[in-house]
Amino acid sequence: MSFREYLAGQQQLIDRELDRLVPAESVPPETIHRAMRYSLFAGGKRVRPILCLEAGRAVAHDPRGIETAACSLEFVHTYSLIHDDLPALDNDDYRRGKLTSHKVFGEAMAILTGDALLTLAFETLAKMDVPDDRKARVIAELATAAGTVGGMIGGQVADLEGEGKPPNAELLESIHRAKTGALLRASVRMGAIYGGADERQLHAISRYGEHVGLAFQIVDDVLDVEQSSESLGKTAGKDAQQQKITFPAVYGLNESRRMAERERACAHESLSIFGARASRLRELADLIVQRTS
Amino acid sequence: MSFREYLAGQQQLIDRELDRLVPAESVPPETIHRAMRYSLFAGGKRVRPILCLEAGRAVAHDPRGIETAACSLEFVHTYSLIHDDLPALDNDDYRRGKLTSHKVFGEAMAILTGDALLTLAFETLAKMDVPDDRKARVIAELATAAGTVGGMIGGQVADLEGEGKPPNAELLESIHRAKTGALLRASVRMGAIYGGADERQLHAISRYGEHVGLAFQIVDDVLDVEQSSESLGKTAGKDAQQQKITFPAVYGLNESRRMAERERACAHESLSIFGARASRLRELADLIVQRTS
Repeated sequence: MSFREYLAGQQQLIDRELDRLVPAESVPPETIHRAMRYSLFAGGKRVRPILCLEAGRAVAHDPRGIETAACSLEFVHTYSLIHDDLPALDNDDYRRGKLTSHKVFGEAMAILTGDALLTLAFETLAKMDVPDDRKARVIAELATAAGTVGGMIGGQVADLEGEGKPPNAELLESIHRAKTGALLRASVRMGAIYGGADERQLHAISRYGEHVGLAFQIVDDVLDVEQSSESLGKTAGKDAQQQKITFPAVYGLNESRRMAERERACAHESLSIFGARASRLRELADLIVQRTS
Repeated sequence: MSFREYLAGQQQLIDRELDRLVPAESVPPETIHRAMRYSLFAGGKRVRPILCLEAGRAVAHDPRGIETAACSLEFVHTYSLIHDDLPALDNDDYRRGKLTSHKVFGEAMAILTGDALLTLAFETLAKMDVPDDRKARVIAELATAAGTVGGMIGGQVADLEGEGKPPNAELLESIHRAKTGALLRASVRMGAIYGGADERQLHAISRYGEHVGLAFQIVDDVLDVEQSSESLGKTAGKDAQQQKITFPAVYGLNESRRMAERERACAHESLSIFGARASRLRELADLIVQRTS
């Protein structure tokens, strides 16, 4: 099976599970379930859930039901996009080439839809069928990565407060480690914990997640400079316009690309203890660095 | 010890635990921790956490660490107030006599602060020191009560969509069961589960929570009509102005007061199996119906 076929298969697995977990549009109050589904099924690549699946498979043979845990990451990711796009935050009208939630459903509903997806993430994990000790660790992992201290919300706040400040390498890395890095790291850690990883495996998977997380953000910043809005499916050039601290702003485009390449190599290195069981994780690291949108 | 002294003691217990659980204002990013603390320590009566404590005590002798679980309810309640007060939703400038979060910290920060409190609720539960099976059940309970299907967000959406519709007893009860009832019911159920309740005890506690939840909302609606903004600490008369479906609008003031009284009596009835161990829960039901703000 080619990597492309593999990826399409995994996306379908996740999409089916998302569809199973989110209340149908016919369940009242219908509006919010429609709004949750609108953003969840708007063409997301399912990077975080697939990283979770593969981390689980690197430590155990096809851990049963891991796709449920994986979907909680897509819920949290999607909630963060909906809230980030709001007029009070980034004020974006388009995301993945479609109108953003508040443009379709209004601001009030977009706020509540984000809240609902975040809540559903934890409900999903609390109800999944896995030994209770692993369940509690997986929930703690997601909550910490999504939170204020070194987590996603903390990075978002630091990013907002960093707008207009002079580009600074240290601030840049701390923002991105939190804003996007923490959830990507949690994706693989949650998969590994779900699969029953030992300390050594969890350590290796965490390093992989950190390198992949940093690579992901560097490439995101580079694409925002290089690509048109059309190929990105969202407004390009927003970073410069909002005077965000980005990798190209601090290091220039060429050095940023070299950095992403180095992070990719380190991600591969981290996986050595897993041998062939981690080949999909290696391909995913390559995909993250080589993507064009 | 008088009930008033008891209540002050419990509020202090909860306030100390909240203070321990929320990152200090000196932890970066400082702004969001300041904003979380601003709303958490704005004079809340801690009704939900105290109901949780007492439900735990009705089934077990002083369950160790239950105040941690109780605080997760205050995090969720406070997040819901911050988001409800936003310009896109109820657009309220005052809450408990103080400026609302977005008036002090701006809209972007208020949205993120609500998100952060919701996230912290689950992080707190996932990390608490209690057997893992009870932990998972407590987390599922909170997430379901805060969610879209019969939970708090669902009630909020139905309430928004009900504005301007003709007053209707069935719609009214379904909105309030979800919007405020679900979290109050979860408060006592979480305490009972934490304390190790058997099925019969959990059933009785759930009935108590439902009656108290309904009484709470009826009294809230009555106070919105009867009281001045000053004594309420928030804008009074908003319900009528926004054409919300309320108990006084459907039943009139006198019948609403009688209904609250009947719910109080039913709440007492539900506790019969606990005898004297539930005397504080009975007093709390009385307080909820007799309060003036």
